[in-house]
Formats: sequence, C-alpha cells, structure tokens
Amino acid sequence: NETLKAELGNASWKLFHTILARYPESPSENQKSTLNDYIYLFAQVYPCGDCARHFNLLLQKYPPQLSSRQVAAVWGCHIHNQVNKRLEKPQYDCSNILEDYDCGC
Amino acid sequence: NETLKAELGNASWKLFHTILARYPESPSENQKSTLNDYIYLFAQVYPCGDCARHFNLLLQKYPPQLSSRQVAAVWGCHIHNQVNKRLEKPQYDCSNILEDYDCGC
Ligand SMILES: Cc1cc2nc3c(=O)[nH]c(=O)nc-3n(C[C@H](O)[C@H](O)[C@H](O)COP(=O)(O)OP(=O)(O)OC[C@H]3O[C@@H](n4cnc5c(N)ncnc54)[C@H](O)[C@@H]3O)c2cc1C
Ligand SMILES: Cc1cc2nc3c(=O)[nH]c(=O)nc-3n(C[C@H](O)[C@H](O)[C@H](O)COP(=O)(O)OP(=O)(O)OC[C@H]3O[C@@H](n4cnc5c(N)ncnc54)[C@H](O)[C@@H]3O)c2cc1C
Repeated sequence: NETLKAELGNASWKLFHTILARYPESPSENQKSTLNDYIYLFAQVYPCGDCARHFNLLLQKYPPQLSSRQVAAVWGCHIHNQVNKRLEKPQYDCSNILEDYDCGC
Repeated sequence: NETLKAELGNASWKLFHTILARYPESPSENQKSTLNDYIYLFAQVYPCGDCARHFNLLLQKYPPQLSSRQVAAVWGCHIHNQVNKRLEKPQYDCSNILEDYDCGC
C-alpha cells in the first residue's frame, strides 16, 4: 500500500530531521557515537525492507557527518535529497534546515 | 511550542509501532539485540529532552520484551499507554495492535 508507505516515510523523516536539528552544537565523542549508532540501527529496523536496503547503501556512500549540529542537519538533508532523487521528487533547499525542523521542544 | 511537540510525538509513535509490527515473528538473537539497542538509542536521542528523560525511566521499569512480533508490539502499546496515562490521555486498546500498524510495506 503506497499511501501507508508514504505516511510512514513522512513520519520517519520528520523524526530523523528533528533529531539532527536538536543534536548538540559541539557534541562530545560520546554523543557522536550515540547518534552514529542510532542512525545505522534506524537503517536496519526501518519497516519497509526495500527502503532499508537502499538507505543502507546510501549510508555506505554518504556516512553520517556528525561534527556539529549544522553539519549533521545538512548531511541529513542531503541524504534525504538522494532518496528524493531516486523517487524523482524535487530537491529540497537545505539552507534553512535548522529553522525548518525547530521543534521548540 | 505544544503543536510541534505533539506532531513530533505522533510521527515518532507511528514509526515506533510500525517497527514493532514488522519485527520478525521468530526473531534471532541478533535481531533481538538490534531492536533492543535501537529502542534504547531512540530513547537517548529523542528530541524532546523532558520526554526522553521520562521515557528512559519507563524503559527501566518496563524493559523491551522482544521474544516475538506479537509480544514486542503489545509491549510497545503498553509503554505508549504509560505515556498516555501520565498525559491524561485515554488508554489505547492493544488487542489489534498488529493490524493497526500494518504498513503493507
Ligand atoms: C530512510 C528512508 C528511506 C526510504 N526509502 C524509500 C524507497 O526506497 N522507496 C520508496 O518508495 N520510498 C522510500 N521512502 C519513503 C519516501 O522517502 C517518502 O517518505 C514517501 O515517498 C513520501 O514522500 P513525500 O513526498 O510525502 O515527502 P517525504 O520525502 O516523506 O518528506 C516529508 C517532508 O519533508 C520535507 N523534505 C523533503 N525533502 C527534504 C530534505 N531533503 N530534507 C529535509 N526535509 C525534506 C518536505 O517538507 C516533505 O514534504 C523512504 C523513507 C525513509 C525515511
Ligand atoms: C517516546 C515518547 C515520549 C514522550 N513523552 C512525552 C512527555 O513526557 N510529555 C509530553 O508532553 N509528550 C510526550 N510525548 C508526546 C506524546 O506522547 C504525544 O505524542 C503527543 O502528546 C500527541 O498526542 P496525540 O494525542 O496526538 O496522540 P499520540 O500519543 O501521539 O498517538 C498517536 C496515535 O497513536 C495511536 N495510539 C495512542 N495510544 C497508543 C498506544 N498505546 N499504542 C498504539 N497506538 C496508540 C492513536 O491513534 C493516536 O492518535 C512523547 C512521545 C514519544 C514518542
């Protein structure tokens, strides 16, 4: 079912980008490895098997860049744009990514 | 901002329950530990700090039960109900949880 798959994608991207936008501005080594591990596990457990396989290949090609909040959020925007490209969706403008995913929480 | 916080919660629960509903019926030890690690990391990186702190306490009290798909999905439903209780929201009926989160993907 394509609608349910799209709803799941929407929900997952929202969480994904919001996590990155709340990542510390100057993360510790510990915080870096926590987020890195989270991202790879997310790619493993993502419920759409085909999507997960493809996303794992993208992670090999574009490993998480987690040196700062800004760098991480832009990396996340770019990898989502790679998925958009494959699905022939428009490219998203990453220049205000932190503001776009400010959850105020 | 309460609306953004609620939207993030909605999105996150959707992903959470769908992951559990797609977990194998007879998981290997490896699949169990992957999902277990994912859940604890999710609790660490969840973007609402207050929610994350509270959810970590719930995980201490109700550790993930990952022996099968059905058991995992019902565990997830119960822990969400604990959050609902704290927020004075109605309890959700867990009896059709697998059908409720069938993403068809
Ligand atoms: C990890 C992952 C892998 C996926 N792989 C596949 C796949 O292989 N095949 C498949 O059919 N579907 C896949 N999906 C689902 C797909 O990406 C979409 O979620 C789905 O097609 C719905 O698309 P949408 O147009 O509603 O917007 P979505 O792509 O879901 O995006 C939601 C919203 O985020 C914003 N947005 C768009 N691009 C960006 C960006 N680059 N950065 C930040 N915000 C952005 C826009 O406001 C958009 O409306 C995957 C989803 C995830 C989370
Ligand atoms: C891990 C986590 C911790 C959170 N902690 C807090 C917190 O401490 N304080 C706070 O203010 N907010 C917290 N939230 C957000 C909060 O749980 C809600 O998401 C938010 O208040 C919006 O609620 P809602 O009524 O739209 O339904 P949500 O609770 O977001 O649920 C979304 C939908 O899931 C279904 N549902 C409801 N209960 C269950 C269940 N038990 N099992 C399966 N499906 C169900 C219903 O269809 C519901 O409409 C947390 C969210 C998450 C993911």
